[in-house]
Amino acid sequence: MQSFEIDKSDLLKIKTALEGSDAELQAALEEYHASEIAILFERLPQEAKERIVNIMPVEVASEIISEMDEEAHPEDLLVSLDPEKRTEIVEEMDYDVATDIISQLDEQDQKEILDDIDHEDANSIRALLNYDEDTAGGLMNSQVICVNINADKKDALDDIIRQSEEMEEFYTIYVVDNDKHLQGIVSVKDIIKAKGEVKVRDLLQPDPVFVKADLDQEEVAKLISQYNLTSIPVVDDNMRLLGRITVDDIIDVMEAENTEDILKISGVSEDEELSGSWQDAIKSRLPWLIINLGTAFLAASVIRHFTDVEEKLPVIVAYLSIIGGMGGNAATQALAVTVRRISLSDLSDRQAYKTVVKEFLVGMTNGAVNGIIVMLFAVFYDKNPLLGVVLFLAMTGNLIVAGLTGAGIPLILKRVGIDPAVASSIIITTFTDCIGFLLPLWLASTLLL
Amino acid sequence: MQSFEIDKSDLLKIKTALEGSDAELQAALEEYHASEIAILFERLPQEAKERIVNIMPVEVASEIISEMDEEAHPEDLLVSLDPEKRTEIVEEMDYDVATDIISQLDEQDQKEILDDIDHEDANSIRALLNYDEDTAGGLMNSQVICVNINADKKDALDDIIRQSEEMEEFYTIYVVDNDKHLQGIVSVKDIIKAKGEVKVRDLLQPDPVFVKADLDQEEVAKLISQYNLTSIPVVDDNMRLLGRITVDDIIDVMEAENTEDILKISGVSEDEELSGSWQDAIKSRLPWLIINLGTAFLAASVIRHFTDVEEKLPVIVAYLSIIGGMGGNAATQALAVTVRRISLSDLSDRQAYKTVVKEFLVGMTNGAVNGIIVMLFAVFYDKNPLLGVVLFLAMTGNLIVAGLTGAGIPLILKRVGIDPAVASSIIITTFTDCIGFLLPLWLASTLLL
Repeated sequence: MQSFEIDKSDLLKIKTALEGSDAELQAALEEYHASEIAILFERLPQEAKERIVNIMPVEVASEIISEMDEEAHPEDLLVSLDPEKRTEIVEEMDYDVATDIISQLDEQDQKEILDDIDHEDANSIRALLNYDEDTAGGLMNSQVICVNINADKKDALDDIIRQSEEMEEFYTIYVVDNDKHLQGIVSVKDIIKAKGEVKVRDLLQPDPVFVKADLDQEEVAKLISQYNLTSIPVVDDNMRLLGRITVDDIIDVMEAENTEDILKISGVSEDEELSGSWQDAIKSRLPWLIINLGTAFLAASVIRHFTDVEEKLPVIVAYLSIIGGMGGNAATQALAVTVRRISLSDLSDRQAYKTVVKEFLVGMTNGAVNGIIVMLFAVFYDKNPLLGVVLFLAMTGNLIVAGLTGAGIPLILKRVGIDPAVASSIIITTFTDCIGFLLPLWLASTLLL
Repeated sequence: MQSFEIDKSDLLKIKTALEGSDAELQAALEEYHASEIAILFERLPQEAKERIVNIMPVEVASEIISEMDEEAHPEDLLVSLDPEKRTEIVEEMDYDVATDIISQLDEQDQKEILDDIDHEDANSIRALLNYDEDTAGGLMNSQVICVNINADKKDALDDIIRQSEEMEEFYTIYVVDNDKHLQGIVSVKDIIKAKGEVKVRDLLQPDPVFVKADLDQEEVAKLISQYNLTSIPVVDDNMRLLGRITVDDIIDVMEAENTEDILKISGVSEDEELSGSWQDAIKSRLPWLIINLGTAFLAASVIRHFTDVEEKLPVIVAYLSIIGGMGGNAATQALAVTVRRISLSDLSDRQAYKTVVKEFLVGMTNGAVNGIIVMLFAVFYDKNPLLGVVLFLAMTGNLIVAGLTGAGIPLILKRVGIDPAVASSIIITTFTDCIGFLLPLWLASTLLL
């Protein structure tokens, strides 16, 4: 099986079916999984989406909207539906998914939807809307399977089956006391296998890994990954069980965080939608380019400062671009390795120190090797051995600076509590441009002229 | 709860305990989860690790080694153990984990370990060793819970409980026929709830999502994420069930693939270990830098070609670095968005075309805005309005080229079957450097001199 990709034939089939009767359309859609229809939706006009949602059974319609990508704006489809159908669909959704979608709407639309649906569902969704969407509370689903620590085997099993009616997956069963304080977990297997007069208390696995509702989603992802969990319970400040986060939600978090990292390190605003409009892309990228233009003027002012060197030794101009550019690339390498390392695990002071020393050594060696090549070129092509020495020193020096800034700046940002990925290559390369122009020009003016 | 980070106090506690008796050491370790001890291991000397593994109960020792990071080389610890202890530990491991660790050893060590352990375990691991580690077969665990399609309720439940003895998590229960052909899945909940004379066949959910053993692990991750699965069955060419891949393995795959992406796009070899030695870092990065040095000479040759322009209009030299550098940054932005988009979902021809058009528009607009700023600077600071016009045109042109190459090159690479992330910023920025030098120099020589 391959992951589903929209194929011209799929799209054609659906578009043809859209011209036929409702029954024909339903028959054509039958062979697709709800998440596949959600992907097809990215290529269909609004009226077609509305019509499909209207004719599908409510469970399928609800799943299609739940599976739609955030960038495909399921909330717009939801508000465009007939209120009665919309109510049925929202009531069928998992609370966490419904909350994510509804949170994208303005207050008036939110109120309208929540006033229409079942009172209990509405209250659960309203409670979830209060959590910041990037925290454990914003990720969690308040539907969990939990049993009382004092229940006996039969009651516990009945309870589990009753509660699991509304869930697709079992995951972990949480054990709570009479006030809903989290006590531990219990496995279904142990309950089924238990012989005789057994209480949940006897099968309890105490001290579960848990998170508070305000923990950042990235930390939640780290815990789930570190302890190999399939779900993690979310509690309030008094250890009362509020909900759980499952590993499939974490996969979406990881994808989003990784997109953010790769965009930030490349000087793109973290909330640019990958498939967004060109106007949005300009809004996200132009500010970074204008910041960079300011810093590029700074690097250019170094070149302006040494006009006498450039007049007396014009060939050096061609080498400036080489040394500046190589510094930028070496810094980008050191930056990528360091930012990724920080994002996977926090570094102790000693590890941070060792990282900077390592990048110094790497910069020195790579600088010397590339410096020798450039030197040989100056000696044999430009017949200027002294210029060769200047270029060797400048290349080595600039690649050392590149290593130190590429590793050091993200580590310092992390220490002072700023996201290290904002030390994008744009910022770092300014540094290496300035030093890459300054070193050869200054060395040449001192040693050659 | 926060994800576990090694704290000086933890390390001190363990180091002190290491000086005491085995009982004291065991007591000190008792408060840590196996995966926490695995993290502590990254900071302990080899003898300490061996001693800890030797005194811990075999289940814990096996879990510690299983949880060790690939970069911490658990295979080295394993071979250093006393053979008897090692056998117990390997027998306790999940097959997929044992295979991953053993695959890192040379053939002689592999043979020694496998000859010692239980015959059936050894055969399972040997079979898994045949699969490429980046494929579904390399990821899967051959221990699955499966029931026969013709079993009745009681037999099925007994079977599930018996098979689940050796597993920590339930996950999905697969249904097979007498020849182990995958027929579908069944939920424990449905079996428990079923009343009367019911067979597995009656509760079957047919047409499960599955993968072939040779499917690339990235595709497996996409499927798990797309269909929100907690596990996926792996089959051979005849649809016989071979094993299953669980979502927690996929989290590790996603982390590794994301590290690879961020490294490759930054011109670092994909298999550089983030915490590797400085010598390894040089091996991984120097080849890219030398390739870049070659292309930087190419860009520099453009500057050498127009020495007359630089002599007559020396101020243009400072602007070359600005226009070249801005092109590099704009190309990096377009590249990051496009590479990330491709890695999340494949683009149709129409989407690819629209992406290139979008980046053209973004490049033109951002180029024009930055071009106006540079033009104003040339007009008011350098008092050279005609140079201003040249710089405006060059900046706009270079940012258009940046957008087209940043988006176009990864899309073309993807079409011809090359990983688009190798179109690293190093390669792309050469292009924008050349054009960024060529445009202003050529325009100036045509329009100004």
